[in-house]
Amino acid sequence: MPTLYYGPGSCSLASLIAIEEAGLEYEPRRIDLSKGEQRTPDYLKINPKGRVPVLVTERGAITETPAILAYIAQISRGVQLAPLDDSFAFAGMQAFNSYLSSTVHVNHAHGRRGSRWTDDAAAIETMKVKVSTTMAESFGLIEDGLLVGPWVLGADYSVADGYLFTLAKWLSGDGVDIDRFPKVKDHFQRMQGRAAVQKALAIDKG
Amino acid sequence: MPTLYYGPGSCSLASLIAIEEAGLEYEPRRIDLSKGEQRTPDYLKINPKGRVPVLVTERGAITETPAILAYIAQISRGVQLAPLDDSFAFAGMQAFNSYLSSTVHVNHAHGRRGSRWTDDAAAIETMKVKVSTTMAESFGLIEDGLLVGPWVLGADYSVADGYLFTLAKWLSGDGVDIDRFPKVKDHFQRMQGRAAVQKALAIDKG
Repeated sequence: MPTLYYGPGSCSLASLIAIEEAGLEYEPRRIDLSKGEQRTPDYLKINPKGRVPVLVTERGAITETPAILAYIAQISRGVQLAPLDDSFAFAGMQAFNSYLSSTVHVNHAHGRRGSRWTDDAAAIETMKVKVSTTMAESFGLIEDGLLVGPWVLGADYSVADGYLFTLAKWLSGDGVDIDRFPKVKDHFQRMQGRAAVQKALAIDKG
Repeated sequence: MPTLYYGPGSCSLASLIAIEEAGLEYEPRRIDLSKGEQRTPDYLKINPKGRVPVLVTERGAITETPAILAYIAQISRGVQLAPLDDSFAFAGMQAFNSYLSSTVHVNHAHGRRGSRWTDDAAAIETMKVKVSTTMAESFGLIEDGLLVGPWVLGADYSVADGYLFTLAKWLSGDGVDIDRFPKVKDHFQRMQGRAAVQKALAIDKG
């Protein structure tokens, strides 16, 4: 049975949602990021990057949300969570997930983890100021086309939906009103009605 | 025939290398980032994000390097460029590519594109100072295990190799001596001996 290491309130919620949607047996294991548990020697043996999520399978560890999400979709039995038989559509899903991880999550991180990129306290404060702007810009692009609707890829639900939900959950804390993005808001509300999402939220909350 | 929009000196080199390795027919189309050609109205119709690379296929555009690389591997005929029949190994490749795009490329970008995350000129200067540290940390992780060797995934060459080569090419400009990372350096030198890499470099240089 795989183990999913997650940190409450972090992007690992997307992987929790995906594995709950897939109906797979797994062991969720909580890493308290506020206590720095992601940097203990034991955890660094599992993931030298010191981040969550990590999915540990019988063959080894998988890191990085876009990789974990695609993997869960591939091992999901019965439930279709990605357009696996269509290279172009699969690339569209991977592009969406990659945008969330390399642009949207990075925008958000400048509000809390600025010390990754500068050691200057005043500079870190200036980064925080711009987060609402960059997050709104990114969600503007999502609203205007990246989110096809009603689900991210169109008619079919996929692992990308849980990832979008996870980052949309951060908007309010980042000073962005989700009401500015009606499609995103509608998606966010529909996601909350899914049993797998409620279960993942409960695990994340602990 | 697909069109690959690339920007000289940018991360799009990884996609040029992949498509050359795949032996696919395509049209490379140059976007001069120094002239802001990625933000013209015509280009924004192709990619609203205003970034390179974009691979335009008969079914539409694919953005984001990890998505383009996996797609090229999937449509490659005859040449094996990814472990497509092994979900776990494929996830390993996607995790590597995702790390390059969401962490390593982001570290590098703080030296040139700091205005993405702050409007403060002094803060932008402090970000530049830390790039050599963050890039060295990332390449330390790559050296210590993410790069299995001799190729990124081990015995078999994949699209991840061209991506690593592309970012390793930035080290010197980022103030990091590649000699600190013997496995990365050996990989970098072997990459230069590949015909597809030489062809991609010639197109990138123009």
